[in-house]
Amino acid sequence: MDETMKAIGFLQNLPIADEKSLFEFETKKPKATGHDLLVKIEAIAVNPIDVSIRKSATKKLKNPRIIGWDALGVVEGCGEEATLFKRGERVFYAGAVNRPGCNADYQLVDERLVGHAPQKLSIVQSAAMPLTSLTAWESLFEKLGINPDAQINKGKTILIINGAGGVGSIATQLAHWAGLQVIATASRPETVKWTLEHGADEVLNHHKNLTEELRKAGHQSVDYILGLNDIDGHWKEMAEMIKPQGKIVSITGNKQPLDLGLLKPKSATFSWEWMYTKSFYQLSNMITQHETLEKISALLDEGVLKSTVTKVFEPLNAANLRQAHKMIETNRTIGKIVIRK
Amino acid sequence: MDETMKAIGFLQNLPIADEKSLFEFETKKPKATGHDLLVKIEAIAVNPIDVSIRKSATKKLKNPRIIGWDALGVVEGCGEEATLFKRGERVFYAGAVNRPGCNADYQLVDERLVGHAPQKLSIVQSAAMPLTSLTAWESLFEKLGINPDAQINKGKTILIINGAGGVGSIATQLAHWAGLQVIATASRPETVKWTLEHGADEVLNHHKNLTEELRKAGHQSVDYILGLNDIDGHWKEMAEMIKPQGKIVSITGNKQPLDLGLLKPKSATFSWEWMYTKSFYQLSNMITQHETLEKISALLDEGVLKSTVTKVFEPLNAANLRQAHKMIETNRTIGKIVIRK
Repeated sequence: MDETMKAIGFLQNLPIADEKSLFEFETKKPKATGHDLLVKIEAIAVNPIDVSIRKSATKKLKNPRIIGWDALGVVEGCGEEATLFKRGERVFYAGAVNRPGCNADYQLVDERLVGHAPQKLSIVQSAAMPLTSLTAWESLFEKLGINPDAQINKGKTILIINGAGGVGSIATQLAHWAGLQVIATASRPETVKWTLEHGADEVLNHHKNLTEELRKAGHQSVDYILGLNDIDGHWKEMAEMIKPQGKIVSITGNKQPLDLGLLKPKSATFSWEWMYTKSFYQLSNMITQHETLEKISALLDEGVLKSTVTKVFEPLNAANLRQAHKMIETNRTIGKIVIRK
Repeated sequence: MDETMKAIGFLQNLPIADEKSLFEFETKKPKATGHDLLVKIEAIAVNPIDVSIRKSATKKLKNPRIIGWDALGVVEGCGEEATLFKRGERVFYAGAVNRPGCNADYQLVDERLVGHAPQKLSIVQSAAMPLTSLTAWESLFEKLGINPDAQINKGKTILIINGAGGVGSIATQLAHWAGLQVIATASRPETVKWTLEHGADEVLNHHKNLTEELRKAGHQSVDYILGLNDIDGHWKEMAEMIKPQGKIVSITGNKQPLDLGLLKPKSATFSWEWMYTKSFYQLSNMITQHETLEKISALLDEGVLKSTVTKVFEPLNAANLRQAHKMIETNRTIGKIVIRK
């Protein structure tokens, strides 16, 4: 008889207050083949993409879908082509959004998307980091093309819209580490404080006109913009604030058409960053996520970066997962929510 | 008494058949100061931007505006801060669109935007090249971030939409020189032939569905796209054809809103290229246009690149300039139109 495991998932898009919006069920325990690792989950982090995918179900599914793509655990099995990890090693990763998620006892993940977990951080501190670190790293160093050498970036400015969220809290740290002058946005006293504690040099209020806020702070324009919230609402300001030939990257999609022509006189560049593109399309550079997580792990152990976890639930069950989704849905969370198994 | 010179310009937006749409007049001969060179014009090239600016006049101007930003001539004077050129040297340049143009006996141009003219080409062959070469160079090597090392780019593909126009005719050559597999678009037998003679490996018909044409030619997608015509009409195809994490650059503006979200799943990058951005904003990297033109000049002298001139008028007078504008307005020109002084 096949071994089974417990998992949490959904069959249809229901309000998070509904007990059936996310529920526990038994399913077959998977086996590692090829490049896959079988990971015994120890902690998971909850992200806006989990809510988006739960809400994207347009009709009732036949079988429950396991979501969650931000995990920490121990390698229990290795596929025959996996060479980067050994059984018993503690790893962290975001994984592939088109495969079953980590809200379960076990998960399969391609080893090229996995890094060794930090050794000096707790399990929940580490579990908070993979998805947001990969998103922030790829945004800054791949999409904006920033060289991580702090000397080169002296005097360069980056605006990070929504500095206190999950990605913002690590992006401000990474941008600071890379020697940039970091201007972040936040609006509440607690998010302003958090942002200044996580690498931001200055904070603008994104509920006011950002261009005016930036000019008041003494900056005519910025070299880079990382957009992490409400691209529709901030687009015109982004076009005003970016330097000629500057670069903008956004992780949040637009709901309205954006006037791309606003960037034309400045010959500016716009990139999307979706951390799952590499795994979704099985790109040959997938292994860069392994490499990036190894670097992030080292920077966390060295104390250069700090964990952004702010809320921990325990244990990993449907009730706690619904609580976490409910918090993400407020769009007001600071840092990261982790659930310990 | 101030010395005068002849120039050609316009006071209002009139149909090109109207003799007053572009007319000759006398104006003060300028003097070089600062970083400027005073250049005695020997030949000019006509570009779509000349037509755009002529047509952009919403009310009658007080004084005629001299247009044309693509020139070859001899340095007659140097400002006190100019150090790159000597009197008597033959130069070519595009210049700055917010200053008086080259459709005149003399023109002032910042030396940081100027290169030495090729020595082995004729005056009209050389005069055809600066604006389009700068646009193509900046598009490929700055905006798309292609390394000009042909070894590195082996196996990489670029789609150049409208390969037979002014920029297309040099972009195909430069992309070929950089080792890329060059897929260009054209639709008429003469433009297909021209494009294949100027660096394209394959030609697709842009009057058909480009995605289907590309797939028929055996390519699922391309690494880079350079859009030189009708971005509105080709946007959906561009999003379909670009590889995940691929890069798109366009020189032609959009008339309708573009659905930027189509690029999101692929985490693709979009850049505008407007060759005049550096001079318009007086950017500190303006001197890269001097450096690029020096390289272009050398590549032309070495025979690596060839001139794209296809039509020469002589002399530079209002009647011939109107003829040239009329040809540009058809949107069917192949290569470049030059007017010899």
